[in-house]
Amino acid sequence: MPEKYVVYHIPVCPFSQRLEILLALRDQQDAVEFRVVDITKPRDPALLVKTHGTTALPVLESPDGRIIKESLIILRYLDEVIPGQQLRRADPGEHAVESMMIARESQFTMAGYRYVMNQDQEKRDDHRKKMLGLYRDIDNFLVEHNPNGIYLFGDFGLAEAVFTPVFQRFWFLEYYEDFELPDESAYQRVRRWRQACMNHRATTQVTKEEIVKLYYDYALGAGNGALVKSRNVSSFVFEPRWQDRPWPPKDTYAGTASDATLGLTSLPVTPAEQ
Amino acid sequence: MPEKYVVYHIPVCPFSQRLEILLALRDQQDAVEFRVVDITKPRDPALLVKTHGTTALPVLESPDGRIIKESLIILRYLDEVIPGQQLRRADPGEHAVESMMIARESQFTMAGYRYVMNQDQEKRDDHRKKMLGLYRDIDNFLVEHNPNGIYLFGDFGLAEAVFTPVFQRFWFLEYYEDFELPDESAYQRVRRWRQACMNHRATTQVTKEEIVKLYYDYALGAGNGALVKSRNVSSFVFEPRWQDRPWPPKDTYAGTASDATLGLTSLPVTPAEQ
Repeated sequence: MPEKYVVYHIPVCPFSQRLEILLALRDQQDAVEFRVVDITKPRDPALLVKTHGTTALPVLESPDGRIIKESLIILRYLDEVIPGQQLRRADPGEHAVESMMIARESQFTMAGYRYVMNQDQEKRDDHRKKMLGLYRDIDNFLVEHNPNGIYLFGDFGLAEAVFTPVFQRFWFLEYYEDFELPDESAYQRVRRWRQACMNHRATTQVTKEEIVKLYYDYALGAGNGALVKSRNVSSFVFEPRWQDRPWPPKDTYAGTASDATLGLTSLPVTPAEQ
Repeated sequence: MPEKYVVYHIPVCPFSQRLEILLALRDQQDAVEFRVVDITKPRDPALLVKTHGTTALPVLESPDGRIIKESLIILRYLDEVIPGQQLRRADPGEHAVESMMIARESQFTMAGYRYVMNQDQEKRDDHRKKMLGLYRDIDNFLVEHNPNGIYLFGDFGLAEAVFTPVFQRFWFLEYYEDFELPDESAYQRVRRWRQACMNHRATTQVTKEEIVKLYYDYALGAGNGALVKSRNVSSFVFEPRWQDRPWPPKDTYAGTASDATLGLTSLPVTPAEQ
């Protein structure tokens, strides 16, 4: 049994970054120990017993041995038990509003991951339009509830902790799909929100360079650590470190670059062909 | 602006019954006024303005004019604002557990509705197996968290308010699909839970007869008030009252009975051919 809260997670996972953001906002980074799970290897049997056979991450284990699954449930749980002011709005009506925003996240996240993983050139525009529609919906919601503000309410709160890791993952859309929000009024409010979320001091767990390099295989259609055909190393490996690898080629519709070109082998690295 | 909470809803909708259950548990039925929305007619423009164009129900309007959508968010909101002891578990860990159970509801509900709406004889067994798998998963969860109890915790709580209306809708599976939980140990715990939920004094808003009669068109594959081919009246109409209609035929793979046979016209009613 752990002496403090333990979160089993995949590093750079947007769903566990939410928890790190909450801890950073409370200056309570030491309240939770994050233990890395290598998803390319069979799961530790001791952990499988604790999770009753499920393998989804993150999973939280409390000091008294309780197992809690699903990132939004863990986030709300930590919001209640970690010392400091709660992230959720205290007012029930305002909390309902932030919950309605959070309810939009799953579809938004899925649309972005499907977009980056798409391998069919002809479907790129459909994905782009779908994504833009979801951004407009979030824009409308922000305009409805806080037209002139920055965040959904006065401060960075629960909805921001939920969405920021997703906004940051979507750096992969910027890089691999040249996806940008159009400079139109329909996106002005959500652009302001997104910018403030990504620039907040509590959300510096990842960088654009890191996301772009690690998620290269996603842009080739291979998610969750799956290996791309003709390659021997996943772009998600911890060694070689992403800092020591070149930026990957942006064109992911032409097939994969080699492990060596991507800096994934110990061989001398050739610069990426852009 | 309303003087008390107003919920716009479709009567017999499982998602608004949750709210009625919460109010019944608190003896606060008068705290909310339920206003019926006829989904077979164009939506009231005044309500469309309030909901910013969305038509999903239920929708809550608070005395101060706040609009809250999505049944689970409304339920948690009312749980915080209605006088009396909250339905949610006070302990954060226990609350996380009930939230994990509630997270199972959407897939469960969808599986049951797809099952009853299925029109392909050959797929009946697949639907049955899918449904049984979801019941076993709920059984496992109850065994994990409260093996010897009745409810998920000591009392009828938030998870019970969420699931009971669904268990009651699934009377339509009993009637139209002869679906029963097998008398096996894998279903013992969930059977005990389901029974206690459906027998609770706060969950008497609907009866099996009412559900079976109103949802006849669902069993023909027509959901949300859509009209079945060759029929002129939906089984969901308020007049003639369901109490005055005969039980519908159980075999819904052979096509629809007539409006008259179903007691949906003012013509003399012939008994249903069973």
